Amino acid sequence: MNQKLAIIGAGNLATRVALELHNKGVEIIQVYSRTVTSALTLARLIGCNYVTKTEKITPEADIYLISVSDMAMSNLLSDVKFNNKIVAHTAGSIPMDDLKRFSTNYGVFYPLQTFSKFRDVNFSRIPFCIEANNKENEDILVDLASLLSKDVRIINSEQRKQLHLAAVFVSNFTNHMYAIAGEIVQDKDIPFDILKPLISETASKIKSMTPRAAQTGPAMRKDQNIIQEHLTMLNNQPKLKKLYSFVSDSIHEFHKLPKQ
Amino acid sequence: MNQKLAIIGAGNLATRVALELHNKGVEIIQVYSRTVTSALTLARLIGCNYVTKTEKITPEADIYLISVSDMAMSNLLSDVKFNNKIVAHTAGSIPMDDLKRFSTNYGVFYPLQTFSKFRDVNFSRIPFCIEANNKENEDILVDLASLLSKDVRIINSEQRKQLHLAAVFVSNFTNHMYAIAGEIVQDKDIPFDILKPLISETASKIKSMTPRAAQTGPAMRKDQNIIQEHLTMLNNQPKLKKLYSFVSDSIHEFHKLPKQ
Repeated sequence: MNQKLAIIGAGNLATRVALELHNKGVEIIQVYSRTVTSALTLARLIGCNYVTKTEKITPEADIYLISVSDMAMSNLLSDVKFNNKIVAHTAGSIPMDDLKRFSTNYGVFYPLQTFSKFRDVNFSRIPFCIEANNKENEDILVDLASLLSKDVRIINSEQRKQLHLAAVFVSNFTNHMYAIAGEIVQDKDIPFDILKPLISETASKIKSMTPRAAQTGPAMRKDQNIIQEHLTMLNNQPKLKKLYSFVSDSIHEFHKLPKQ
Repeated sequence: MNQKLAIIGAGNLATRVALELHNKGVEIIQVYSRTVTSALTLARLIGCNYVTKTEKITPEADIYLISVSDMAMSNLLSDVKFNNKIVAHTAGSIPMDDLKRFSTNYGVFYPLQTFSKFRDVNFSRIPFCIEANNKENEDILVDLASLLSKDVRIINSEQRKQLHLAAVFVSNFTNHMYAIAGEIVQDKDIPFDILKPLISETASKIKSMTPRAAQTGPAMRKDQNIIQEHLTMLNNQPKLKKLYSFVSDSIHEFHKLPKQ
């Protein structure tokens, strides 16, 4: 890659993607973030300069990788001069065409993964969802993604939005189930560690089974005695109780449908 | 182990535990299940006899491992003569004392894991939760569990019940999130496979991070634009929409609390 990159945003995703690109030899010339600490931390790790004001964003980059919320994108970046260089965002739910106003060359560079700033992650199997306004830009973004991962796909905005919704269920909601369980065991002074082999196996199962075939537990077995007992245990946590009841009903419902 | 075992029940858990005990050299002399196919399948794999009527349950076993629902336990097993041999159940939510009526020697042998009949699972790290009516029986059940796993713990009925509730969240509910996501991507002809690295990383993260620290996504970031868009996408699936909204609110709530 001869292109020079600028990274706009220094959150979880921007940080991990920028570090991985840097490690793979991609030249990153600048990091922008509103937050000094975030910009500084990432820029130091890369060894490039950083700015915290959009008017100071470099005009020298060939690709601008935008990793800020869509709110920030509309409000902060509207006056930036991207000189018709490639502007690509990294978001699941923002349509590609929202970038039209910034440049005649634009696209999407969306890694389907959960990122935390200080957690290293193996990029080689992360699905990179690429979309671009023309074949030339698509090729450039595919090449860039291929430096990081073996799984690079062309995915349109409609599919990507759907994928992002699915990702919220398998990752954000799942992690919240872990969090709730953590509170439940903490209540009886049981260490959270005891749940880790179960968490790990539950995730491993679906590598070789469908979620439908992998489902176990009282809701699946329609074991009303246990469901009622669990609901009683949650009597003093009405919101959790409602959530338990709601997800259990949803499991019932799902397993009433004919197998596909 | 010189003890002879009888396995009462041939569901997912009974099947995997019995096979693992058999592989570790434990002598299993009989399998009981109401369902001929289940009893037969398991008995053949072990190479022992099977029965489908409780009155035919062998009087020869030293340990009876009971792996049936609490309903079945009360209704089916009330007339079985266990000759005061050790009767142990494998359930998360059944109090140990429910076994009092069967024998003067009783206990619990609960592996905290999700089991599917035809999926092999690594037992060595499964937490076995043991409880018994006296120290002698506790030692026997600990020895039996230690043949299978390095993680054998003494857990009382109250803690075990709490653990089982937590297990429902991290395993059954989590797997249901995978199932929902599967339906969502299927809608746009995207293969479920694309979500697997994300599922895997989400589970891996909490090996070294708390679920609180690992949380990402629109609900965590309070990104109302994306949350609203996702809710709109679910307009024709009112139950899923309610579930999305409910879990998102729960994430909000959780991350408003001060860090512990």
